[in-house]
Amino acid sequence: MDIIKPRTLSGFMELLPGKQLRFEKMMEILRTTYASYGFAPLDTPVIEDAQILLAKGGGETEKQIYRFQKGDSDLALRFDLTVPLAKYVALHYSDLAFPFRRYQISKVYRGERAQRGRFREFYQADIDIIGDGKLDILNEAEIPAIIYKVFKGFGLSRFQIRVNNRKILNGFYDMLGLMEKSGDIMRTVDKLDKIGKEKVRTLLLEDIGLTEAQADDILKFIAISGANGEVLAALEGYTGKSELFDQGLAELKAVTANLAAFGVPEENFAVDLTIARGLDYYTGTVYETTLLDHPEIGSVCSGGRYDNLAGYYIDKPLPGVGISIGLTRLFYVLDEQGLLNPALPSAPADALVLPMTEDPAPAIALAEVLRCTGLRIQLYGEQKKFKQKMAYANKLGVPFAVLLGEDEITEGKCSVKNMGTGEQVKLSPADAADYIRTALEAGNCPVILEK
Amino acid sequence: MDIIKPRTLSGFMELLPGKQLRFEKMMEILRTTYASYGFAPLDTPVIEDAQILLAKGGGETEKQIYRFQKGDSDLALRFDLTVPLAKYVALHYSDLAFPFRRYQISKVYRGERAQRGRFREFYQADIDIIGDGKLDILNEAEIPAIIYKVFKGFGLSRFQIRVNNRKILNGFYDMLGLMEKSGDIMRTVDKLDKIGKEKVRTLLLEDIGLTEAQADDILKFIAISGANGEVLAALEGYTGKSELFDQGLAELKAVTANLAAFGVPEENFAVDLTIARGLDYYTGTVYETTLLDHPEIGSVCSGGRYDNLAGYYIDKPLPGVGISIGLTRLFYVLDEQGLLNPALPSAPADALVLPMTEDPAPAIALAEVLRCTGLRIQLYGEQKKFKQKMAYANKLGVPFAVLLGEDEITEGKCSVKNMGTGEQVKLSPADAADYIRTALEAGNCPVILEK
Repeated sequence: MDIIKPRTLSGFMELLPGKQLRFEKMMEILRTTYASYGFAPLDTPVIEDAQILLAKGGGETEKQIYRFQKGDSDLALRFDLTVPLAKYVALHYSDLAFPFRRYQISKVYRGERAQRGRFREFYQADIDIIGDGKLDILNEAEIPAIIYKVFKGFGLSRFQIRVNNRKILNGFYDMLGLMEKSGDIMRTVDKLDKIGKEKVRTLLLEDIGLTEAQADDILKFIAISGANGEVLAALEGYTGKSELFDQGLAELKAVTANLAAFGVPEENFAVDLTIARGLDYYTGTVYETTLLDHPEIGSVCSGGRYDNLAGYYIDKPLPGVGISIGLTRLFYVLDEQGLLNPALPSAPADALVLPMTEDPAPAIALAEVLRCTGLRIQLYGEQKKFKQKMAYANKLGVPFAVLLGEDEITEGKCSVKNMGTGEQVKLSPADAADYIRTALEAGNCPVILEK
Repeated sequence: MDIIKPRTLSGFMELLPGKQLRFEKMMEILRTTYASYGFAPLDTPVIEDAQILLAKGGGETEKQIYRFQKGDSDLALRFDLTVPLAKYVALHYSDLAFPFRRYQISKVYRGERAQRGRFREFYQADIDIIGDGKLDILNEAEIPAIIYKVFKGFGLSRFQIRVNNRKILNGFYDMLGLMEKSGDIMRTVDKLDKIGKEKVRTLLLEDIGLTEAQADDILKFIAISGANGEVLAALEGYTGKSELFDQGLAELKAVTANLAAFGVPEENFAVDLTIARGLDYYTGTVYETTLLDHPEIGSVCSGGRYDNLAGYYIDKPLPGVGISIGLTRLFYVLDEQGLLNPALPSAPADALVLPMTEDPAPAIALAEVLRCTGLRIQLYGEQKKFKQKMAYANKLGVPFAVLLGEDEITEGKCSVKNMGTGEQVKLSPADAADYIRTALEAGNCPVILEK
């Protein structure tokens, strides 16, 4: 048979089992946390009608999209989860209860130039809350509170959710008589972290044509910083001049107060006037999330409030608030930086049961008993030498081996071997299960089970 | 803004939230059960190099595949999970521990003619165990034992896993001097359920050119039926004439005995000599699974033993055994037949917390307390009339509403309303959580929580 050299396309993440187990655990944390806040799972097709997916159009998107013909159909792979959500809500509008809260953790596709840490197929993990006509400000605090829980679940603590409100920015530019240029200004100011204050000033003057006084007012404004209370107090000084600004400040104060009620510590969220988000789509609260020890990575979770989710598909005002984690990239970065939670399991089983008799029936029964206690148990049925069986257990990284020979069967026991320490004890099946679980929970073994 | 009519492509399943929740619960049962037997999750790309995906070639596959160019690349969407597994094992051979046990629950793509109950994008839920050179027969009993657990987890009881061994069939045809025609014969016999005994006989005589005596021997052989012990006893009468047959019978007996050791009741598995599987790929044990009250659906879970997983990609003998559930189709059929487990949750939350005061902080805190007990709690922050809030709770189908007004806050309690019975009680937050959980577990509410 001719052999074709196997390969996986570049820009597509394909993990070995140990890492995949950790990735899956992160997805489970996402699903469980999102569900605990009453979000319903959503699963839309990977392939959509290209006309529908590209209703909004736009340059970068169209260049990157995977688009192809099948028969007479003009098809494309989804490039985010927001456009499919908009389609879904418009299509099923009358069947949904609003506010409609959904999460979706799915792959999306962008045919970007492949480079380190950039993926053409990657998971996004999104939550959105969509209102019918109206949506309460409370939701704008709940979204980052959920993200806080997710990141804590990932084992991270040095992260910060940065919050701003575009009405404050627009209102401020309104005061300066620069309302029409506010989009251009925000896109420029958004580059502050990357290019620095001086270059932003130059761009504001030369590219956008502001006066020096205007540029300085803006730079002074976005330089407002400090504890959340200090920033909010400084913003009070600008009130009474623009209705939009005052509304934005009231919203930002409500979000800040409610975030505290949700139990998010002040160290994990910050009011940050430099956050604007590049998209014109957002209209109120906006979020970015940074890893404090790795600012160079940029935002790992972003989103905000929008007023018109599905205007391309339905003639109804559907405001919403949402946030998206670029999960594949986040996993790649955490792995590279050694920040993956060591408590995430990386072995496919908690214990490997080794039959030491010819008849496998007693070992089968033992494995079933251990499994019933909730442990992940692999039965090893291959006819190999003991040493090879141990080598296999070590390669898998299982924390325990459970041996069952004639002696153990006669005594109604089994021998549990800690693969980390080499320690071996003879126990009844029920005690063996307790012993393994206790060790896993205490972390006294190469791999820790998270329940 | 011009409005584009939203639609989802035909042949692509897109569920409303209540059904999606049930589908997700089935996926969770699959993941948990597969993991409890020590299978590692695998996630391969949806897009692969077309040359690699089509290494085996073959008519139907090539016609149905989604294949397209992107830049210079000839790409295709995976049409099953076996070819990507073969590629993965060949590519990562030296990093894997054998036997390599993996599960994958992922979407696959086949551009078939769309028709009711046929999908172009559908989930497969596969498990495979791959050996390096050798693989013990024990694995061939474990695979159907796991499927038994999965189907029980789905809430099904009237199903049967039918088991056969191709060595028995090939050995039998060998005895009749029909070894070379065994593939054709098996493909014909496989149609027995669909076209009946007489038509199979006609095909054996006319299409395959057997003598009447040969056809009758075959029909007599495959008519062997009864309890598993009876079938195995009848097969003993054929031993001693073909080494292959004798080997197959020994394997079938081992699988049958071990399936009993795994705790699979005899009513849920049957030795069935008519099972052959259409693919030439299988070499030993083969499986099909039927819903006893719906034989017309055909097999909902099939697989078997193969000797050469990845011969197109690597020069190593990699035998394996695997099985695949066509999950999207199974869900569609169960839903249509009213067989979806009523214990599967269909509301996105166990309770809806309704703040009845202007300040939402006490309700936020209450929701967090209830969530910490493991309940799924949605906080409803919209400024609506009480009646509208109740209408929303009813539309979502949440079993409980939790009301928090000034009185409750003063007393340190909350009011829990059973949305099914209308009954309302005032309880402390801890008691409320117990009350809700107890009711959910007892099924005293519209929706039952499965833990």
